[in-house]
Amino acid sequence: MQTYFLGIDGGGSKCRASLSAEDGSIIGRGISGSANPFQSIDRTIESVTASVAAALEDAGLNEGQLRYTHAGVGLAGVNMPSFYRKIADWPHGFASMHLTTDLEVACYGAHGGPHGAVMVAGTGSGAFVSVNGQRRIYGAHGFTLGDTASGAWLGHKAVRAVLRAEDGLGPSTALSAVFAETAGKRGVNIIERMMTSTPRDFATLAPAVFDAAADGDAVAGDIVAGGASYLDRVARRLWEYDPPRMSLLGGLRERYANHLSGTTLERLSPPAEQPEVGALLYVRSRIRGDNRHDADVSAGFSE
Amino acid sequence: MQTYFLGIDGGGSKCRASLSAEDGSIIGRGISGSANPFQSIDRTIESVTASVAAALEDAGLNEGQLRYTHAGVGLAGVNMPSFYRKIADWPHGFASMHLTTDLEVACYGAHGGPHGAVMVAGTGSGAFVSVNGQRRIYGAHGFTLGDTASGAWLGHKAVRAVLRAEDGLGPSTALSAVFAETAGKRGVNIIERMMTSTPRDFATLAPAVFDAAADGDAVAGDIVAGGASYLDRVARRLWEYDPPRMSLLGGLRERYANHLSGTTLERLSPPAEQPEVGALLYVRSRIRGDNRHDADVSAGFSE
Repeated sequence: MQTYFLGIDGGGSKCRASLSAEDGSIIGRGISGSANPFQSIDRTIESVTASVAAALEDAGLNEGQLRYTHAGVGLAGVNMPSFYRKIADWPHGFASMHLTTDLEVACYGAHGGPHGAVMVAGTGSGAFVSVNGQRRIYGAHGFTLGDTASGAWLGHKAVRAVLRAEDGLGPSTALSAVFAETAGKRGVNIIERMMTSTPRDFATLAPAVFDAAADGDAVAGDIVAGGASYLDRVARRLWEYDPPRMSLLGGLRERYANHLSGTTLERLSPPAEQPEVGALLYVRSRIRGDNRHDADVSAGFSE
Repeated sequence: MQTYFLGIDGGGSKCRASLSAEDGSIIGRGISGSANPFQSIDRTIESVTASVAAALEDAGLNEGQLRYTHAGVGLAGVNMPSFYRKIADWPHGFASMHLTTDLEVACYGAHGGPHGAVMVAGTGSGAFVSVNGQRRIYGAHGFTLGDTASGAWLGHKAVRAVLRAEDGLGPSTALSAVFAETAGKRGVNIIERMMTSTPRDFATLAPAVFDAAADGDAVAGDIVAGGASYLDRVARRLWEYDPPRMSLLGGLRERYANHLSGTTLERLSPPAEQPEVGALLYVRSRIRGDNRHDADVSAGFSE
């Protein structure tokens, strides 16, 4: 019987799956919706399932092949024991499932193997370094408690700044007019519209914040500078591990490029592959038995 | 038939009701749980109902008296049309219900009538001024979008600072040890514990932030100074309306006293009565027909 490998990368906006044959060639790809355990475990499992079904269909295989398929799954938050357990206990039907953080599979993808460092600035944010058996996560605290410099963080800061400006309690900003246009609303209507917003909703405002900063708006400029300064500090911490390579990933990678310090920029290498390909490399390395670490991914990290 | 009045003040932690006879004497009081529409409309209505039932019982009256009772109800967020409608449409059974913001009833209570200014720093935050027909809310944006200087804001800032310190991405702080003791946890366990925290949970950490600031912790000191500086700015805006009196209200009133500017402190007067008594004054004034304004409270505010 043929053995298959699935690499799955969950994120706040999309879940992507790549299916490979034993020789490593990619034979199918699938995309589905949001797969972030911080937002919903059930939704995460649904999205993983949907991306896998789409990848199987793309490859012309049926669900019966799942039990010959080893899956590498990268998801936010699984460094926390409670999330890890809930997802590991899911009756997935794979031959085996190897679960780690979205950051670790991104690192495998960016560097084509286990060693290196990554910073991610997308809907959420986080960083990861793996060098000589040391593995460490920075940030990745989720929207409520962290995600500094992420798209959700930028959009959220911007909405708060607009509300402060409308109260005459903070400097006025071009963002007020931008949001009045995109949201069609001002004042109390912004609150009404945004109070149940998801991180993804806030993240949709991030490009407007970069644009306003580029046009010289001081409030937007301060928000972007705050995010860039955080990423510079993260990059310095990661570099202390002397990683062979370091990459900046995520939807805001190019937007931040103009705002990072020269030192950070010099140290960054372009990512080699996408995170879902990293998840494939991860599961193949786990099956081969290299780079073994504890089944509970949280146990492998230094404090 | 005797006519009664109910004054109800909903908040993020508690809902309080006072029942008065026609002569104004208070004949019953009731307390129940959280009544903040930002958190849950259903829970808010349950808590209002429970506080009213307790006040009726305290007065030795039964529910049959409700239809001879005029209720003044102050709740967060009802300046937003959607919240206003949902609560106004509730089949309350009162002779009449007069719904306004928690801030307006607090203002009636603090100053014994409709005119004056209030700032509230409790679980949430907000400010209100009513002078010569002008009525304006500042802040009161709810936890996700505002509540600057509130207990929830202080606790949330502190947790983020602790997580940044643990990542070596921010200054170390005595708050880390305090939270390790109160939460019994560090690092990823703080996230696991706090990621589903309510504003009220964050607000329980606020006294520890004031204590650490008093003990000289720079991180806690900066957080408290940020809250105090916001309240100073709010106080300046309120004072521009030339209110007859201005008060600082809420659970953090005394904790902030050492941190506000001398100018703000000089302008503050002690509150005369509690907000639920303010809600009684409010409903009686509405029934008498003074100070009439639009039924939709949001329509009465200047932008």
